[in-house]
Formats: sequence, structure tokens, C-alpha cells
Amino acid sequence: MKLTEDTVCEKNLYKGKVIELYLQKVRLSNGKCSDREIVKHPGGVAIIAFKDKETILMVEQYRKPLERVLIELPAGKIELGERTEECGKRELEEETGYKAREFTYLGKIATSPGFCNEYIYFYKAEDLYKGKLDRDEDEFINIKEVKINDIKEMIIKGIIIDAKTISAFMYL
Amino acid sequence: MKLTEDTVCEKNLYKGKVIELYLQKVRLSNGKCSDREIVKHPGGVAIIAFKDKETILMVEQYRKPLERVLIELPAGKIELGERTEECGKRELEEETGYKAREFTYLGKIATSPGFCNEYIYFYKAEDLYKGKLDRDEDEFINIKEVKINDIKEMIIKGIIIDAKTISAFMYL
Repeated sequence: MKLTEDTVCEKNLYKGKVIELYLQKVRLSNGKCSDREIVKHPGGVAIIAFKDKETILMVEQYRKPLERVLIELPAGKIELGERTEECGKRELEEETGYKAREFTYLGKIATSPGFCNEYIYFYKAEDLYKGKLDRDEDEFINIKEVKINDIKEMIIKGIIIDAKTISAFMYL
Repeated sequence: MKLTEDTVCEKNLYKGKVIELYLQKVRLSNGKCSDREIVKHPGGVAIIAFKDKETILMVEQYRKPLERVLIELPAGKIELGERTEECGKRELEEETGYKAREFTYLGKIATSPGFCNEYIYFYKAEDLYKGKLDRDEDEFINIKEVKINDIKEMIIKGIIIDAKTISAFMYL
């Protein structure tokens, strides 16, 4: 069955600091029309950073949409014109204060493909050394060192619920 | 460090068929204010449905925000007042035509906690029997039977990139 949908017209409803909102009219594969609400997001990079062979760096951060603190991989949005690898190195240093001598691409995910175009790219960072912390001025973070062997149990117990963090470990 | 952020005020910018968009002014833990763009989503349920011990049902679907077809677990949005288990059983039958005699909760994820409040709840469905297909009128789907042992390779190769689908297999 043909599955593609063609855009008939698109209206921008909002352009913000991080996201943009569009309303699209699309033609379905049966010739009929339907509406699609689409959030455009610049995408992000998340990093599995090994402090030693068994220990990775995670961040605790208040997530306003959920009104709770989450434990996640260090991650951040891709800036205009930035390559994913650059973004990952920048975010790792800004959030954790570490740089990495080895930085390896692992794969990517689509976080919410039903309404949003966000991709998150994963990197593994190894052989870390001290750089300098430089967080966004509205960003408050606690760094956590977590044993790689504890990750699975933290997911099963619901301590880690962030989709990018859970997905990233499938690539290791 | 205190991480919570308090809402100073909130403005609704859009109420649509699926999502709502809000702009919040928040007070950070250092007393300063910042803006948060927040997408509210009803949440969803995704199902790992075993046709036999080695085979699960997946769906191929055009995802307009990404302009491509994705392979995903059967899934759908929670309707107003619906419990997650009800939603999962309804979506499984609507999308695949199957009902399940065993339906087990596995866990939940937050898909994009930086800007969206969407949670997706996972269920395992076993002992399937024929119900009836009843798709949304703007929903075009191909059913795929996939061997559970092939999933990991499909993720590594980038054939499966959907975050909920990848995350769900961590709970099995």
C-alpha cells in the first residue's frame, strides 16, 4: 500500500526560542485530505560518557513539562549550522565539564514521530579529561556517576524513564 | 542543588486536535525568570504483541513530520478519560486486527521531556486471537511480522529508529 502523504499547504502558527508549530493540510494515499499538527525542533545530541570502564556520567535536571526531576544522559539541542559531533562535544563539556579524546557515533532516534521532527543523535565519549563547565543561564543540573551495570535495573524500576537515555543503551 | 522551577504564569497559544502549545514564565532555583515552550500531549500506549513465541507485530506508517515511513510498534493516543490498558487493547485491535488474552504492563517513558509532557506506556500482549481492524480514517498502515531475534540488528542498522519502539524492548 502507498503510504506517503503530500503537503497541500502549510501554515506557521508559532516560531519560538526552541520549537516552531505548523498546521499542514495533507493529501492521503486515498486522495482525501487531512490535517497534521507538526512541531519542528532543531534536534539534539546525547552522549554516553565513560568516566572509567564501568562508570558513566548522567545529569539530574528538572523537566518543567513533566513537573519532575529526571535522570538523563548529558544532551542538548543542535545549534544553527552545527554538526552533530560538534554539538555533542560542546554539550558534554558545558554540562559535565569534561572533554573526550575518543568520540564515536552510535546511531539516531526519532523521539515523537507522530507530531514532531526531532532526531536525537548518540555518541560514545571515552578517555575523558577536564574541560570547563559552562551551562546555559537557565540550566540547573546535578551530575551523577552511575555504574553501567546498574542502568538496566534503573530502567526496570522506573528510575530512568527518559526515552533517549533508554534508547541509547540499545546501541552499546 | 534545588532543581525545581515554579510557574509564574502560563499562556495558551494553540489548542489543536492532538496537541496544545503553552508559553510559561518560570522562576528558576536562583530566583531569576525564564521562558519555557511546552507542548501538551495526551500520551500514548505502545504494545509488544507476540503472534507466537518468536514473532511480534509491527506497523509501517508514513510519518509526516519526518517525511518518511517508519517501522514501529502498534501504538496510539490515549483518549479522554481512557485508562492506559483500555487504550492499548483498543489500539492493538484497531491497528492489527488482534485481541489478546494476556495483556501485561511493562513500564513507561517520557519521549521528549525538554519541551513535551508526553508519556508512552508499554504493554506486552500474548495469546492473540482475531478481532476486527478499525483504523482511523486518516491512518494508513502496513502490518509486518518481525522475528524478535532480528530486532536488535534492525536497531543497529538504523531500520528501526522510533524511540518508543527501541525503548520498549529494554523492558522485555
